[in-house]
Amino acid sequence: MTFQTLAEFRTILAALPAPDSAAVAAAEARNGMLTKPPGALGRLESVAIWMAGWQGTDKPSAAAPQIAIFAGNHGVAARGVSAFPAEVTVQMVANFQHGGAAINQLAKAFGARLDVHALDLDRPTADFTQGPAMTEAEVVSALRVGWEAVDPQADLFVAGEMGIGNTTVAAALAAALFGGTGWAGRGTGVDDAGLARKEAAVAEGLARHRAVLDDPLQVLRCLGGREIAAMVGAFARARIERVPVILDGFIACAAAAVLARAVPGALDHCIAGHLSAEGAHQRLLDALGKAPLLALGLRLGEGSGAALAIGVVQGAVACHSGMATFAEAGVAAG
Amino acid sequence: MTFQTLAEFRTILAALPAPDSAAVAAAEARNGMLTKPPGALGRLESVAIWMAGWQGTDKPSAAAPQIAIFAGNHGVAARGVSAFPAEVTVQMVANFQHGGAAINQLAKAFGARLDVHALDLDRPTADFTQGPAMTEAEVVSALRVGWEAVDPQADLFVAGEMGIGNTTVAAALAAALFGGTGWAGRGTGVDDAGLARKEAAVAEGLARHRAVLDDPLQVLRCLGGREIAAMVGAFARARIERVPVILDGFIACAAAAVLARAVPGALDHCIAGHLSAEGAHQRLLDALGKAPLLALGLRLGEGSGAALAIGVVQGAVACHSGMATFAEAGVAAG
Repeated sequence: MTFQTLAEFRTILAALPAPDSAAVAAAEARNGMLTKPPGALGRLESVAIWMAGWQGTDKPSAAAPQIAIFAGNHGVAARGVSAFPAEVTVQMVANFQHGGAAINQLAKAFGARLDVHALDLDRPTADFTQGPAMTEAEVVSALRVGWEAVDPQADLFVAGEMGIGNTTVAAALAAALFGGTGWAGRGTGVDDAGLARKEAAVAEGLARHRAVLDDPLQVLRCLGGREIAAMVGAFARARIERVPVILDGFIACAAAAVLARAVPGALDHCIAGHLSAEGAHQRLLDALGKAPLLALGLRLGEGSGAALAIGVVQGAVACHSGMATFAEAGVAAG
Repeated sequence: MTFQTLAEFRTILAALPAPDSAAVAAAEARNGMLTKPPGALGRLESVAIWMAGWQGTDKPSAAAPQIAIFAGNHGVAARGVSAFPAEVTVQMVANFQHGGAAINQLAKAFGARLDVHALDLDRPTADFTQGPAMTEAEVVSALRVGWEAVDPQADLFVAGEMGIGNTTVAAALAAALFGGTGWAGRGTGVDDAGLARKEAAVAEGLARHRAVLDDPLQVLRCLGGREIAAMVGAFARARIERVPVILDGFIACAAAAVLARAVPGALDHCIAGHLSAEGAHQRLLDALGKAPLLALGLRLGEGSGAALAIGVVQGAVACHSGMATFAEAGVAAG
């Protein structure tokens, strides 16, 4: 299964698979027999049952997680919306490739495969305040990079991103998809003047693309960026392959929001990994109806918050799939 | 270094070591050079620097964590304060030994050594509402079990517990050490009548032992229990060996509170791993001045919440010790 046009991608989104309800029922039954008081593992219990549903087994695993990092450059970065110069995107991609970034260490710590996809870094998307960020061919190409990046054999998937200027793009997407203002935040650390430039860029972008705001995939095309489109493609492919996903911070959730607004329930295979320190992330999670597993104040991107949450999911499935039942252990069930 | 009496234990507590301030300074300097915006790893940064101080190196590790489980039985359990019968303590110890409990799976997931110490399970402590739970010889013996349990080569330590009735003991300890009422909670799941019996037992215990309430170690002796005294001994030994500790839930924190009230700063080598669903845990953490790394609704004991937080600490030190600096990676520092 693949797609050559946005119309073909829409056709795929119109027929997303559901979780395996028999596996969910079997996992719920198993959960009730494990050697612990009912509910005593808290949220780990629902996480394990959710994993069971997507993996189609009452004993889910998280031994083969995959992290895919997507990097892109943004025309809007020229408007002074970041504390870092645009060259940092390509420099950080080299850092990912050489193993020096935070996400490399987290991938190693939790036994995850890490792939890095740089999307046309020498060809930034157009400044969305001046016109559409991408043509249809460009957005389809970026969606396909993400689509092809997912390993169907992975038992858990995380998408991360790198792209100077992309919190501005994500803020524009959130504003376009959910309405309201104030979605721009400090990103990597802009000052008040930079924050004002971000807010102005978002407002200009929405005004310019007013005509497409009711079509989430056109919103994605017009606002960008390539790494965000790649995450949209990856989350859709993970759903098709029934690979559960941990969502990272503000930018990854903005990508996820494109799917959520395109198709109700499109994020049922996704869990929120971490509440970012980026200002509007809580608001975006609320709009998506997702409660984060962690809240540790990260605001780095790269998939780092979600990668950290891989450990929590591994703990959840380890307990669910590995514990003895009351009968097996000869423990009185209370 | 060891002790044969409470007086000798007090002497040890009077001379606890401090963290290595040179290692803290070196770790702070390193943190500022890593390839990320300042502060972008949120709480992971302070966790790594705290680990550096106790381990005495600017590149701390968490590759050799140790989890020690202590189990004890409590005379007060006969007063109907638990949803489970007292036999479950010994049954769960067998489950730990056979690898079937939640903590076994979490230990495996995060590469931790797991040791199980059953303390005189066939000889419950005395009912603290009727008299002192332990003699001085008994409390010293239990403290020493914990003291000897700590592996000085571990780079991170977690103490867990099992003991039907021990949330009542922990509530009594918290009430004795910090004052106030309402420290009793649902534990493994008691109903309203059971909760009322817990509250009554706590009030009776405090009234009976009024004379020792200003002496935390006598409070420990009079209220119990053996597994809690063992945790006190273990936390003290970890401090002497400069092994950083992740505190678990309500009962482990009640043990830690004995040290905190005995010696100001005695828990500087401890971090709170997880906010338990046990009602008064947040209040106890506030009294200890500790903010938990996780809040996932667990209320199991066994060290499970702290064990889950090992993953977070491993992520923190992996980033801190493994990331490239801006200079090493050739990335512009913004």
